[in-house]
Amino acid sequence: MTDFTFQINNDVKWQYNNYFLDKAKNNKPVLQRAIVKPSRLVDIVADKTKFNGWSAQNDSRDLLKLDTYALGRNDSVILDFGNHHVGYFKVDLQHVGSPMDAPTYLHIKFAELPAELMGNSDEYDGWLSKSWIAEEYIHLDVVPTTLVLPRRYAFRYVQISVIDTSAKYKITLANPELTAVSAVLNKKVLKPLGLDDPVLQKIDDVSQKTLQDSMQDVYEDGPKRDHRLWLGDLRLQALANYATFDDRQLVKRSLYLFAGMPTTDGRLAANVFTEPEIVADDTFLFDYSLFFVSTLHDYYQHTRDVEVRNDLYDTAKKAIDVGLSFVNSAGVLSLDDRYPVFVEWSNTIDKTAAAQAILIYALKQFITLSEAQKLPVETYKNQLKQLIDAAKTYYFDAKEGLFVSGPERQINIASQVWMVLAGVLNSEQNYELMAKSKIKLFPITGIATPYMYHHVVEALFIAGHQTDAIQLIKDYWGGMIALGADTFWEAFDPNQPDFSPYGSVMVNSYSHAWSCTPSYLLRKYVMKLAV
Amino acid sequence: MTDFTFQINNDVKWQYNNYFLDKAKNNKPVLQRAIVKPSRLVDIVADKTKFNGWSAQNDSRDLLKLDTYALGRNDSVILDFGNHHVGYFKVDLQHVGSPMDAPTYLHIKFAELPAELMGNSDEYDGWLSKSWIAEEYIHLDVVPTTLVLPRRYAFRYVQISVIDTSAKYKITLANPELTAVSAVLNKKVLKPLGLDDPVLQKIDDVSQKTLQDSMQDVYEDGPKRDHRLWLGDLRLQALANYATFDDRQLVKRSLYLFAGMPTTDGRLAANVFTEPEIVADDTFLFDYSLFFVSTLHDYYQHTRDVEVRNDLYDTAKKAIDVGLSFVNSAGVLSLDDRYPVFVEWSNTIDKTAAAQAILIYALKQFITLSEAQKLPVETYKNQLKQLIDAAKTYYFDAKEGLFVSGPERQINIASQVWMVLAGVLNSEQNYELMAKSKIKLFPITGIATPYMYHHVVEALFIAGHQTDAIQLIKDYWGGMIALGADTFWEAFDPNQPDFSPYGSVMVNSYSHAWSCTPSYLLRKYVMKLAV
Repeated sequence: MTDFTFQINNDVKWQYNNYFLDKAKNNKPVLQRAIVKPSRLVDIVADKTKFNGWSAQNDSRDLLKLDTYALGRNDSVILDFGNHHVGYFKVDLQHVGSPMDAPTYLHIKFAELPAELMGNSDEYDGWLSKSWIAEEYIHLDVVPTTLVLPRRYAFRYVQISVIDTSAKYKITLANPELTAVSAVLNKKVLKPLGLDDPVLQKIDDVSQKTLQDSMQDVYEDGPKRDHRLWLGDLRLQALANYATFDDRQLVKRSLYLFAGMPTTDGRLAANVFTEPEIVADDTFLFDYSLFFVSTLHDYYQHTRDVEVRNDLYDTAKKAIDVGLSFVNSAGVLSLDDRYPVFVEWSNTIDKTAAAQAILIYALKQFITLSEAQKLPVETYKNQLKQLIDAAKTYYFDAKEGLFVSGPERQINIASQVWMVLAGVLNSEQNYELMAKSKIKLFPITGIATPYMYHHVVEALFIAGHQTDAIQLIKDYWGGMIALGADTFWEAFDPNQPDFSPYGSVMVNSYSHAWSCTPSYLLRKYVMKLAV
Repeated sequence: MTDFTFQINNDVKWQYNNYFLDKAKNNKPVLQRAIVKPSRLVDIVADKTKFNGWSAQNDSRDLLKLDTYALGRNDSVILDFGNHHVGYFKVDLQHVGSPMDAPTYLHIKFAELPAELMGNSDEYDGWLSKSWIAEEYIHLDVVPTTLVLPRRYAFRYVQISVIDTSAKYKITLANPELTAVSAVLNKKVLKPLGLDDPVLQKIDDVSQKTLQDSMQDVYEDGPKRDHRLWLGDLRLQALANYATFDDRQLVKRSLYLFAGMPTTDGRLAANVFTEPEIVADDTFLFDYSLFFVSTLHDYYQHTRDVEVRNDLYDTAKKAIDVGLSFVNSAGVLSLDDRYPVFVEWSNTIDKTAAAQAILIYALKQFITLSEAQKLPVETYKNQLKQLIDAAKTYYFDAKEGLFVSGPERQINIASQVWMVLAGVLNSEQNYELMAKSKIKLFPITGIATPYMYHHVVEALFIAGHQTDAIQLIKDYWGGMIALGADTFWEAFDPNQPDFSPYGSVMVNSYSHAWSCTPSYLLRKYVMKLAV
């Protein structure tokens, strides 16, 4: 997650907690590994039906004869590993012809989708760092050799281009190999979907792969790029994980990481780094901080792990108290630019009402946690009532039958959805709200994140619009699959399928864990499993 | 040395001699090392007086404050190490600002001359491998770190460009360091020039540095590029070495390397590789093969090393016998395209007469070696007389007073010079020949190699034109210094100072050992030392 979540705060006062950070370290996963061999050689060809107009087609050359193809200046091959993976790449190089009278110079590109291989990194000038473009330039002074790249990549395709050998010799490639890594690489999914719907089955498969590839040393947002643990993304990843791999240790570790690095005033960083060292990012988002409460609540509901609840309750309390401190005497949440709310990437959506709903949503979960702690909750319940009353009073437009947001009384999808999720209205009202939303706000426009689409779908399920919820899953996540997705993407706007928030397909993440939630949604709301 | 010396011969039958190759391995030098720190930060600025129109000027930034300059996207610094060196580079990186939310991506270029830093490697499309362009692209996932580049470079300047950090952090550089290597890095030159001529003194200094930087695991031709031992270049390097560092082991090792890898018919490769393994190149040059005789002769004259003479005499004999096998019954050498003679890079010079002279030159040295071996030389002396007679009969134009070459009776500088060096005429005739050459062929045109200029100067000295010889050294080698040379170049044509045989300054070698001979010429012919 990035975009306007980009912040620099030089004046943050941190209060690291080594007891929590040690627990986080003690729960560091041992990554599982598997060797993956490529399945074929491909060419990238123009194809209007696929993402960005490119697809991978069989090359005229045969993978089984790879070591017979002599490659010199400007020659290249593209290896297809058959599916998306996160891991390491190596390949053997042999030399053919006269003695090696010059180094071998290679350009190696890694791609999650074929379109990425058609980009030229020199032309990228977006605000996101160019250093994320997955390519290397490598001189080899000695061939034969085994080229072992030390960096980790997220990819399905590897293009190896020979910038030059020399006029006297060429190289051949042999034994290309990917070592895939994940905390749950070999873990079986406990509850198969079994809905006898091939479209939903494929969406579930791709969701699981997306989640699996993000479960590394922490829950990474997208393994291609950030490699970082974001709190709001974690909340969804944890839910999808309970419904599939059910690896509890990595959620526990993640909770301790955030709890171990609060600010002195009780805020939690929106994300943390674990490499080169464990450190919190100086970025703060109102809703992400509250989702610590939410993630702890969900973890406890799923595991009944009292030790973790006892350890982390105070951190959750501080997070909720910081959130409540922005509520005025009328029960209205009022934020400023120093502590923005995320909700969605869009900057055209007014987020005032959605933020109020998210605070209600988290406060309810906090009260549940407090009751489990057997602590008094009266004050919080009063605040909750005040927040809900204010939401109805100031944000619900009875004439429209929809929530409005901001001084312009904007009617947007985020407000309706979060009010449903927060349970501000009763069941019948929720049904009506989403029925009106469908008329007024569907088909959805201007939303590019699977993260927001997740909340829309969940609100539809909760409000009783099951058929619409399933259709939206099929349209939105199925839309990515139709365009060639092996894993679900960081961003996808069905109205602009080629949209990149960064101005280049080369830096987009095409395996982004906040998009993996169909596995959770389908199990919870269609299979009616307790996840 | 390269250009039309480029050959591919797939059908060569080799007869490796492990006894000789073991002796070569036993004489492998232990490289000496020295730490060199940069002397300043520079900018490259337009300067018509310097090579290719560029020179290095003081940067507005201060090297002493290097670690205070925060570098982000598109920032760069150029380090000047004050002189040409061969070795390894490392630098410490620190990180400043918010946590490192993206890798650091660097582009590092190494340059012997400022002009190289102005080239764009993407635009180079010459026949010489692009892999020789001295640049690296490096991702660093973790900063702080010490970046230690594993490859060896030949350079004075290092440009470190930050392709990107991220908008949240920058890097700083500290402790840049070059570890210089050479077999004679710390060896004192035995015989200072002491001619009280600052121009000649500077030329001697630059010659010595050029030689020193080429003396590595073998006598490399140019440490920037080939890293290879060429026989014709070795002959000149060995002579310059006797006059300066006088390291005998490396010459001995080089002789055993060539003797260890002949063809079954007795030819010697024009060059050999020692990395990744010891192997002879499939390139053969008539004159280079004969220069094995010459190099062994010079080595024995200098060292009186009877063991080496005994070991390698038969190799020399085979080389001379192969050479003589191309002589017809009239005493005229006749070569074909399968065994070309080098003489000089130029393809417009007819080399027939020069090749005849080179055979005479080598045969005389072989006879000297044979006499030292106390072997009968009568047959060889007869062949020598026949070759000399033929040279005078068929190649000397009495009317012109100059040697002619080829069917067009071309008069060129190479023929005159090699006839002098071969001693075909007597002293008075030599004086006249070079006097006529000066009138007819000076100022020299169309010659771009210091290798050929060396032979012109030596011929002038031998023929009694000492003043002209010294002036030519000052004009030609001094011309490179005036253009900014720290070491002497692979190619220099005073009439086209920007000439590159490869179409780009980025792949030229600006420290090329066949240009280091002024140290030898001045000591032998001006100081009159026995070298």
